[in-house]
Amino acid sequence: MTVLAGGVGGARLAQGFALAGVPLDVVVNVGDDTVLHGLNISPDLDTVMYTLAGLADEERGWGLRGESYATLTQLTALGEDTWFTLGDKDLATHVARTARLRAGAPLSAVTAQLAAALGVAARILPVTDDPVATLLDTPSGRLAFQEYFVRRRHADAVLGLTYDGIDDARPAPGVLDAVTGADVVVVAPSNPFLSVFPVLGVPGVRRALETTTARRLAVSPIVGGRAIKGPAAQILETLGHEVSALGVARLYAGLVDVMVIDDVDAALAPAIEALGLDVLVTDTIMGGADGRERLARALLESS
Amino acid sequence: MTVLAGGVGGARLAQGFALAGVPLDVVVNVGDDTVLHGLNISPDLDTVMYTLAGLADEERGWGLRGESYATLTQLTALGEDTWFTLGDKDLATHVARTARLRAGAPLSAVTAQLAAALGVAARILPVTDDPVATLLDTPSGRLAFQEYFVRRRHADAVLGLTYDGIDDARPAPGVLDAVTGADVVVVAPSNPFLSVFPVLGVPGVRRALETTTARRLAVSPIVGGRAIKGPAAQILETLGHEVSALGVARLYAGLVDVMVIDDVDAALAPAIEALGLDVLVTDTIMGGADGRERLARALLESS
Repeated sequence: MTVLAGGVGGARLAQGFALAGVPLDVVVNVGDDTVLHGLNISPDLDTVMYTLAGLADEERGWGLRGESYATLTQLTALGEDTWFTLGDKDLATHVARTARLRAGAPLSAVTAQLAAALGVAARILPVTDDPVATLLDTPSGRLAFQEYFVRRRHADAVLGLTYDGIDDARPAPGVLDAVTGADVVVVAPSNPFLSVFPVLGVPGVRRALETTTARRLAVSPIVGGRAIKGPAAQILETLGHEVSALGVARLYAGLVDVMVIDDVDAALAPAIEALGLDVLVTDTIMGGADGRERLARALLESS
Repeated sequence: MTVLAGGVGGARLAQGFALAGVPLDVVVNVGDDTVLHGLNISPDLDTVMYTLAGLADEERGWGLRGESYATLTQLTALGEDTWFTLGDKDLATHVARTARLRAGAPLSAVTAQLAAALGVAARILPVTDDPVATLLDTPSGRLAFQEYFVRRRHADAVLGLTYDGIDDARPAPGVLDAVTGADVVVVAPSNPFLSVFPVLGVPGVRRALETTTARRLAVSPIVGGRAIKGPAAQILETLGHEVSALGVARLYAGLVDVMVIDDVDAALAPAIEALGLDVLVTDTIMGGADGRERLARALLESS
């Protein structure tokens, strides 16, 4: 069982599979990785790791529960530009990651160590150990991912995207096997442009998904014409795609066998089937742990 | 007014001069600098900075008052070896310093920025921007400074010292001028071997002290045959020096004009004068702010 994931949506669905007791690989986007205060920060990897460890701050949607901000407050006092909120516990992840990367360990090995230390049983795989940076062309110019997403609160219209470095990136150890060797591969209800395509764009990954014998499902991040979370709807619109589960299905046609759409979008099923995709209509709004496990089991039962 | 300082003793005397309203340069040892969790840590510089900012944890003798340890606790959970205690606020100093050093700024510039951000009026100068590492030969082998000092609680007998890198180190901008251009230079009551000699050993610094027209004073860190703090007494003993203000005076003869000794050591004055040094006998135990200012004023009045 392999999940291709970005941040929150992928993390929550992955947790659903983990709760359902399924051995799990999660291949995670790194296009949102950044360096702040000299620290290597991997928000999507950490969201997956913290969620699978049961430590995520679910209300806020990022970071760890029960955080304090003593270091960040002092960084501000020292003149650092602290627009990106980092909790004290979260900082430990970034400090440890940065130290180990600097000592020469690849991101995949560091991620495995950190996840194991937090008691995560699933295998969390950064899609690549090489740097990939999602850049966004907007009316205000080209923005780095976290500049766009956090600092400017994804308010800019996205006119185009570049995954800088992706052509030279190599899949991290285990990534291609996780796709080709799985029984089921699920494209998580993550943002296609911000989360999924920078995973598929790493040379070899799209081909692995195209050729795997696994049953391939994609869960629409658009429900009732709106994104469950984040700017997926706006991005689909400014890039000229239909803002619906059908619009998402068109992006994934040829890559997956089954499009998973929400009950409220049941009427779109015939049009999606016309793309050559099977359709699973179910409640895709996960909410808490119960809903995540419910959706995971619905996907497993359909496979 | 220039103080040559290590950690606590130098920091407290420097604060005394600051409280006395004297424009102040503090030239600080960096032989105790270390890298932990990938972060550049400069304990002596930070002790001076925190003390002059009025933020030091005076009871503990290091770090900042009112610290929390959320990041360190999490670093431990992530498998980092956390024998060196780092508070959350203190970590901000190390994170900001490391980021700025990695961005290419020299330690002296970073120190000036951090000190200014904390409201320190005095100029804090690392003796050099180049790496110098105090290494200690002990019956257990050669130890890095913090390994000896913190991890093993300076319990090992010191049979010899090496200031690794010191011959290639250049004085940081302003250091030589701070010694040659001052009216008064004070060698703080710091450990001669761990704090003062790695300052004087940076090429040009000893010569600057030998040739300055400033009145030069040294305050004995040994009072009544014991160190005020730390392993100065043990080190003097194992290296074959007399464990007394006289033993310290012998180390500094030719480098300073005045040896400042405590009232309890008044009987040593004739022997110290026989070395060609003037002697100032006063209460050298500083305690809190009042005592620091009192000692600073006593030194100024004698100059």
